[in-house]
Amino acid sequence: MTEQDINAGGRVAIVGGGLAGSLLALSLARQGVGVDVYERRPDPRVGLSEGGRSINLGLSKRGIQALTEVGLIDQVMPLSVVMGGRVIHAPDGSTRFQPYGKDRGEVLHSIDRNELNRLLLDHAQRHPQVRLHFNHRLERIDKARRELEFDHDGEKVRAQPAWVVGADGAFSRARQEMQRGERADYHQEYLEWGYKELSLAALPGGGSQIELEALHVWPRVHCFFVSHPNRDGSHTLTLFLPHEGPDSFATTRTPDEVRALFNKYFPDLIPLLPNLVDDWVSHPTGSLITTRTAPWSMDEWIVLVGDACHAVYPFYGQGMNSAFEDCSALMAAFAAHPRDRRAAFIAYEQSRRPHTDTLAELSKANFIELKQKVQSFWFLARKRVDAALNRLLPKTWLPLYTMIAHTTMPYGDALKRSRQQEKILLGAVSALALVVVGAGVWVGRLL
Amino acid sequence: MTEQDINAGGRVAIVGGGLAGSLLALSLARQGVGVDVYERRPDPRVGLSEGGRSINLGLSKRGIQALTEVGLIDQVMPLSVVMGGRVIHAPDGSTRFQPYGKDRGEVLHSIDRNELNRLLLDHAQRHPQVRLHFNHRLERIDKARRELEFDHDGEKVRAQPAWVVGADGAFSRARQEMQRGERADYHQEYLEWGYKELSLAALPGGGSQIELEALHVWPRVHCFFVSHPNRDGSHTLTLFLPHEGPDSFATTRTPDEVRALFNKYFPDLIPLLPNLVDDWVSHPTGSLITTRTAPWSMDEWIVLVGDACHAVYPFYGQGMNSAFEDCSALMAAFAAHPRDRRAAFIAYEQSRRPHTDTLAELSKANFIELKQKVQSFWFLARKRVDAALNRLLPKTWLPLYTMIAHTTMPYGDALKRSRQQEKILLGAVSALALVVVGAGVWVGRLL
Repeated sequence: MTEQDINAGGRVAIVGGGLAGSLLALSLARQGVGVDVYERRPDPRVGLSEGGRSINLGLSKRGIQALTEVGLIDQVMPLSVVMGGRVIHAPDGSTRFQPYGKDRGEVLHSIDRNELNRLLLDHAQRHPQVRLHFNHRLERIDKARRELEFDHDGEKVRAQPAWVVGADGAFSRARQEMQRGERADYHQEYLEWGYKELSLAALPGGGSQIELEALHVWPRVHCFFVSHPNRDGSHTLTLFLPHEGPDSFATTRTPDEVRALFNKYFPDLIPLLPNLVDDWVSHPTGSLITTRTAPWSMDEWIVLVGDACHAVYPFYGQGMNSAFEDCSALMAAFAAHPRDRRAAFIAYEQSRRPHTDTLAELSKANFIELKQKVQSFWFLARKRVDAALNRLLPKTWLPLYTMIAHTTMPYGDALKRSRQQEKILLGAVSALALVVVGAGVWVGRLL
Repeated sequence: MTEQDINAGGRVAIVGGGLAGSLLALSLARQGVGVDVYERRPDPRVGLSEGGRSINLGLSKRGIQALTEVGLIDQVMPLSVVMGGRVIHAPDGSTRFQPYGKDRGEVLHSIDRNELNRLLLDHAQRHPQVRLHFNHRLERIDKARRELEFDHDGEKVRAQPAWVVGADGAFSRARQEMQRGERADYHQEYLEWGYKELSLAALPGGGSQIELEALHVWPRVHCFFVSHPNRDGSHTLTLFLPHEGPDSFATTRTPDEVRALFNKYFPDLIPLLPNLVDDWVSHPTGSLITTRTAPWSMDEWIVLVGDACHAVYPFYGQGMNSAFEDCSALMAAFAAHPRDRRAAFIAYEQSRRPHTDTLAELSKANFIELKQKVQSFWFLARKRVDAALNRLLPKTWLPLYTMIAHTTMPYGDALKRSRQQEKILLGAVSALALVVVGAGVWVGRLL
C-alpha cells in the first residue's frame, strides 16, 4: 500500500449516485475501499418516482459482464424482460420480426432504469464500506486544497476525499470543475430531434397488447417510436420527433394537434393509447446530446466515468452498457497499476476513449437506421446476408450489431472488423458477378 | 421603424470593448444607433499596457475592408508596417524570402493589437452615440427579463438594452449565458502547443536588426518562431512550442534550460535577444484554442461576433480579420432585413458560419505549414508554380493564400476554388507527363 494505491489516504468520493456511480461504489467497496457517494437528488427509493421519466434500457453483454463482476447479475435478471429482437410496425399496420441474434443467447434485456438504480443503491447501502449522501449537490472543487464543496439543503458541506470519481452525467459538474482553467477539449452537440415517453398499458388481465418479448419500432422517417416492455405487460414508448419545423414538438401542443400527429403517422397506435393526450401534456419533452471530452482525469486525484466523459445518443442502446463497461475498465486499470493511481487513470482513458468515440459515431448512425433504414429492402437484404454468414461461420463472421450488443469486444475493434467483413463481402459479390457474367457469355457462345 | 428595427426600443449593449466590439460600436453609431460598450478590463488607454501581451497582428484585405467601411483606414495605416512576404530562417542561419503576392498590393500590415484597440476606442468615444463602460464584467443574463447584470468594482450594475452583442472573446460569458439551458452545440479544443512572446529590440540608432518589412519565420518542426515588425524597428517574436514532453514549456523553466533550448534550435537568435532569460520568465505562456458553436443568436435580442462565436488558431493570421468581417456581415444582414432583427441575425449566421468553420480548418492546417512545410522542396516548388500561374492568369488563377489574405471572397468559396485549381493542375501535370513519356517512346523508336 503506497500513497498512490486506490485504498490509500482515506475514503473515495463518488459524485453521482446514478447507475455508474452506484455500480462503481460497489466495485470499489468489494476491493476494501471506503466510498462516499454524493447524489444531487433525493433517495429514489423513498417517495414517488419521477413521472414520465421511467426510461427503460436495454441491458446487453457489456452491462451483464459488469454486473456479473460485482455479483449482482442474478438479482438483476428477474427485474428484466427478454427482448429477442425488433418488431417493425409498418405504416399499413403490418409487422415484421427481426431477431437480435442467431440464438436465444443473443438477446437484450429490457429493464427499468429506476428499478435497477434502486437495486444498486440497496446493495451499495448494505455494504459496510459505502455511505450514501442524498440531496448533496456538488458546487465547487478546490483543486489546490483537494476539497469538494456540496450544497446540502442550503448548507455547505465540505469533503477532502483521498480521490474522486465524477459519475454525475452529461452535464457533469465534476467535469466542469476539474477542467476549469485547464486546456481541456470539450464537444457537445444536440440532436435536432427530441423525445417524449408515453405508456402503453397492459391488458386488464395482465397480458401485453403487443408482443411482449421484443423491442418495437414504428419507423416513419419524419419521426419514430421505440418501445421497451415491462414485466407487467405494459410498454414504455418513446417518440422521437423534431423539436422545430412542421410536425414537430413545437407544433404539437394542443389536444387537437396531438391527435392530428398520431392520425397522420401512427393511426395503429391510437386505440392502444387511451391516455395519449394527458400523457403528452404531462410528460416532459427530452433532448438528446452527444458529448466528448479530454482529459478524463487530473493527477492522481479525480477521474470521470459514464456520461460525465462521453454522453451518446440512445440509438444503439449502449449508454448504460458503456458506462458500466467504464467501471470495469477503470477497475482493470487499477489492477494493472496497483501502486500508481495516476498511471491507472491515464491507462483507463487511453484504452477507453477511442472506443467511446467510436460508440458516439455508431449511435449517431443508428438514428438513421431506426427512423428509416429498418424498412428498406436493401438494408433488410444486407441484414439477412449478414445473419446467414454468421450462421454458416459463427466464429468468424459477426454482424456489427452482434459485436456491439452481444460481445465485450472494444467498440473500435468491432467497427474495424465490421469494415473488413464489408470489404470481403463486396469482393465476394464482385467475384460472383464476374462468374455470372462469364457464364452468361459462355452460354451465349454455346447457343 | 418597427419594434424589430436595429434602432428601436432603446440603446444597444455590446459586451466586450476589444477589436470587434469597438469596431461594431462605431458601425452601429454611424447608423444612428445608441451603443453602450461594456468592457471587463480597465481602459487600455490609461496606465500601463499589459506586459508580454503586445501581440502584433497581420491586417489583411478583409480587415482593411471593414475599417474602410467605418472610415478609419487612413488613420490605421500609419500605425502599421508593411509586410511584403515571409523571410524563412533555416537552421544554418541562411534566409529565403517568399513574397505574399505578385505585387505591392498583395501585402499584409503588421499592427500592434493594443494600439489598434486604443484608436478604435478613441473614435468610438468621440461619437455622440457611443458610451464606454470599463471595469464592467458581465456576470449574468436574465433572458426572461432581457436584463444584463455586470459587476463593476464589486457593485452590481443592471442594464435592459434593446438588444445585445456578445463580443467578449473565446471564453465569452455572453455566449455561455445566452446558451444556458438551450440546445446549443459547442466545441472547444486546445492545441498541444502554447506560445510565448519575446521582443527583438531595434538597433540603437532606430533601425531593424533583421529585414523590417516582412514576417519572419524560424521553422524547426519541433517548434518555431514567427515575428511581426513594429514601427520603431523592433520585432515581436512569438515562439510556438509544445506544452509538455521533451523540449517543451514544461521542461524549459530555469535560465539554463532556456539557453539550452535556444542553443539547440535557434542559435542564430541568441545574439539578437540579450534579455531572453528575463523575458522568458516574466512573460506568460499562452494557450491556443479553436471553438465552434451554434446558434450564434437568440430571438431578436442577442447575437455573437468574433472569437465569441469562432475562435481560431492564429496560423492563418485571420483572427482579427474574420472578426472585423463578422461586423461587416452583421451590418449587411441588417441592411438586407431592415425591419426584422431576428431574420437579420439568422441570415448573418447562415451566411457566415460555414465560412468561419472553413477558416478554423485552414488555420489548423497552416500550423503544419509554418512549423514544417515552408522548408520543404515540394512545398516551395508548388508555391512557385502557383505564383507563376497567378502571374500568367492573374484573374483566373488565385493561390489559396491570396484568396484568403488579399480578397474578401468567403473562406469556404476560396477553399472550393483552390481545390478545383488543384484538380486542374494535377490533370495538366498528368497530361504533360503522358506527352513526355510519349515523346520519349517516339524518340526511342527513332533511335
